[in-house]
Amino acid sequence: MKIPKSITKLIESFQSLPGIGPKSAQRLTFHLLHFPQERLERFANALLELKSGTKICTICKNVGEGETCSVCEDKSRIKNQIIVVASPMDVFAVEKTGYKGLYHVLHGVIDPLNSIGPEEIYIVDLMDRIKGFEDSFGDALEIILATNSSMEGESTAMYISKLIRDTGFGEDRVKLSRIARGLPVGGDIEYADEITLSRAIEGRIDF
Amino acid sequence: MKIPKSITKLIESFQSLPGIGPKSAQRLTFHLLHFPQERLERFANALLELKSGTKICTICKNVGEGETCSVCEDKSRIKNQIIVVASPMDVFAVEKTGYKGLYHVLHGVIDPLNSIGPEEIYIVDLMDRIKGFEDSFGDALEIILATNSSMEGESTAMYISKLIRDTGFGEDRVKLSRIARGLPVGGDIEYADEITLSRAIEGRIDF
Repeated sequence: MKIPKSITKLIESFQSLPGIGPKSAQRLTFHLLHFPQERLERFANALLELKSGTKICTICKNVGEGETCSVCEDKSRIKNQIIVVASPMDVFAVEKTGYKGLYHVLHGVIDPLNSIGPEEIYIVDLMDRIKGFEDSFGDALEIILATNSSMEGESTAMYISKLIRDTGFGEDRVKLSRIARGLPVGGDIEYADEITLSRAIEGRIDF
Repeated sequence: MKIPKSITKLIESFQSLPGIGPKSAQRLTFHLLHFPQERLERFANALLELKSGTKICTICKNVGEGETCSVCEDKSRIKNQIIVVASPMDVFAVEKTGYKGLYHVLHGVIDPLNSIGPEEIYIVDLMDRIKGFEDSFGDALEIILATNSSMEGESTAMYISKLIRDTGFGEDRVKLSRIARGLPVGGDIEYADEITLSRAIEGRIDF
């Protein structure tokens, strides 16, 4: 039996997405066969306009609609707090917590195995922001390193913190912190893995 | 923080697909942001051409490229064997077994709760095929009912078999069968659910 080309093409497109295997790609494609053409067009247009409708913010490298993103333009944000994250999705997650500072999106982590070095991600731009930072009250800038706790995420955080100190920014100028690792809220101690638990004990706070 | 419209639009499109929740839709959209525009265009074109590049076969209602599908056009197929399935995906699955007969795709099952009656699916067309069937050797036509074993699938199979007999086609003209239910090959008896196991015992074959 010959499968129509227009079907195999769409299956291939779906399969190139992360977490979608051959079976899911098939299922999605056949599901779309029952969609009215109008909805397929809406989907296709959303794909075509994805990149033209978004811009990387010149300041924090987050994804926005204009030259600078809505966070950087918001005057009510705390200017001397920058959370450093790997991807724009992390910004979404942090925004939900009600965080009121600024962001810096690296668009990746240092990953030598996939030939991603420090130059491939927005570390130079972060350093430029730090160099250009001036606080009217003379307060220090706090850099909160919020990369994932994977090996790549940890080494990226290490690299950035070392770079900041090596460039000559002391504690008085740049305060460095890393988001806490520990048991998730609602998580049971008996089910926690040993690394998380040991990190939770290390990072214990006064009570 | 304001999320760019072009991102929310694509997230919404992904979310309308089966099995893709808000988190996956977000993840897929942000993944696509890193795609070159050319690949996004290929994906969009695949969506746009999905329906124009496919046609419902006038005989078996399977999805093909021309008026009749490649199975119906294949002269080497056994003409007096028709597997009745709910969707074109089921045809793919059966094709992999090396089955050499024909198909009839219903494009759905009778599902009163979602207001899908017998008229909404290709049952009338199946009856027309049966009425028009003539075998040069006088052999009976075998209709193999291969709808799923869900309540809707079972009742659709029941409905079709009753309709065929009520229309006056006896055993000599139309042989009716239903695919076997039982333990999957490699499945352990101790892990089988009681319904599957009882169906496997009911459907036991001589050894």
